[in-house]
Amino acid sequence: MVYDNKTQLGIEREDGQRILVLEEALRQLQPGTECPADMLTAIHRGEAFLKQAKKVLEQATAMPDGDFWVQPSEIKRSAPIAKTPKNIMCVGKNYAAHAIELGSDADIPEHPLIFTKPHTSIIGHGQPVRLQQDVSEQVDYEGEVAVVIGREGAKIEREEAWDYVFGITLLNDLTARDLQSRHKQFFLGKGLDGFSPIGPVIVTDVSEAALAGERLSTEVNGEVRQSAPLTDMIFDIPDLIQIISRGMTLEPGDIIATGTPAGVGKGMDPPRYLRPGDDVSIHVPLIGTLENKMTDE
Amino acid sequence: MVYDNKTQLGIEREDGQRILVLEEALRQLQPGTECPADMLTAIHRGEAFLKQAKKVLEQATAMPDGDFWVQPSEIKRSAPIAKTPKNIMCVGKNYAAHAIELGSDADIPEHPLIFTKPHTSIIGHGQPVRLQQDVSEQVDYEGEVAVVIGREGAKIEREEAWDYVFGITLLNDLTARDLQSRHKQFFLGKGLDGFSPIGPVIVTDVSEAALAGERLSTEVNGEVRQSAPLTDMIFDIPDLIQIISRGMTLEPGDIIATGTPAGVGKGMDPPRYLRPGDDVSIHVPLIGTLENKMTDE
Repeated sequence: MVYDNKTQLGIEREDGQRILVLEEALRQLQPGTECPADMLTAIHRGEAFLKQAKKVLEQATAMPDGDFWVQPSEIKRSAPIAKTPKNIMCVGKNYAAHAIELGSDADIPEHPLIFTKPHTSIIGHGQPVRLQQDVSEQVDYEGEVAVVIGREGAKIEREEAWDYVFGITLLNDLTARDLQSRHKQFFLGKGLDGFSPIGPVIVTDVSEAALAGERLSTEVNGEVRQSAPLTDMIFDIPDLIQIISRGMTLEPGDIIATGTPAGVGKGMDPPRYLRPGDDVSIHVPLIGTLENKMTDE
Repeated sequence: MVYDNKTQLGIEREDGQRILVLEEALRQLQPGTECPADMLTAIHRGEAFLKQAKKVLEQATAMPDGDFWVQPSEIKRSAPIAKTPKNIMCVGKNYAAHAIELGSDADIPEHPLIFTKPHTSIIGHGQPVRLQQDVSEQVDYEGEVAVVIGREGAKIEREEAWDYVFGITLLNDLTARDLQSRHKQFFLGKGLDGFSPIGPVIVTDVSEAALAGERLSTEVNGEVRQSAPLTDMIFDIPDLIQIISRGMTLEPGDIIATGTPAGVGKGMDPPRYLRPGDDVSIHVPLIGTLENKMTDE
């Protein structure tokens, strides 16, 4: 988050009403301990960081009037991770109904399609998306759950995959449909500056069982366009971690976006692409809401 | 390069017979100046670095017995850039004859196919490539010229594209053909650990005209498999920089691999994939030779 003119770590209280300024809380409540400089550093510290954060959150919760608590309106959200080690890895057509809306039953993949988005496309919750209408006339939303990797690993088995997860967040896999189809491989159509809003937070205490009960929904200007249970994923999170890491080392801070359900603009008849002023809002109850406005640039 | 148990910058003399240990040369010949810690730092310094390096090379050339000169046998090559800001960007089917050998005339692209390889796939000249035969049985070579970006920029025009080039190197775009076709999008088949040998050097004083006179050739165990003039590229280097940067910001240290000519193992009848012990050597006279041995792991 950005608070006090500085990009720094915060912890959102479960009710969303207060945010803990981590560095200030540690300074006051755990003097002598060091606050990680950024989220990547925190992820690298792993369990030690999570333990430190949990303890300071308990301490601070007992002092609701402490000046380390701020209101949501006092901060700006930045992307939880500004620069992933690798490009963000994304899964194409991971919900059957979405594969069909862009083609037919024949498009339901037997093996996951994996493509990437560069870190230069990352922005935070609430930041404007420049539609770049000189480059694309067909910008589309894709609401997705994204996994943040916590530990380095390769050849990770399904059964141990959750041990490698630092947390879960939301990602809008904005896509220039004209570039995507023109260039066949998805990278150019997916990789435009600002086309990967991420946030609003990383939820670190998520369980597989809890996530299985959740739905993902996407609204454009308040109209529900996507709504699906997360159990509709063809390849679930352990599948994806196993398949991607078979020959490639995953690193702390890598992000895997898990694909989008049916209901994208391109799937409508006629297609409805994003226009300047449109507001796209992605919601999973357990994670929160990721909202960004499109701008005329 | 690795010299004196340390990864550091070196400058290869044009005849290839001696290598200047940059830090040591600067210490002795330009006391008080600072040596960049690594290649990315050097690239960020841009013209200032190139001027510094050129001057110290002139000074050292006048002192051929200085102990800042070492023999090629005294060093190990590491990848000139170990960690690119974004994944390496690669162009698919950028030589017509190669597009045809993998399909037909219909596969000659009208717009470039761009996919990526993660930094975890980068290794240097002379380092072994683990074939990962538990993951792929169809590993193939692709000899390519690669461009190293020197300056940040977006919406770069063809005419100014060369101003954004720091230098040129070679890249072996090793590919697991079975994964490439199974997963449709190329990332997984291209992204295995160690599948992007880069080097042996970055040539910084390359001109477009000089490059136009060059051929790229690839040998497997001394047998020529690929050989084509660089002018056979469908999309040349300025085209690629212009097209990729239309909506995406390029950064210093980003690498764009320019595609491979006809002659890959998959294009043969029957296909000839790489086996443990095979030696793949990619050569462009102006740049040098990038050679790596495949190992049985």
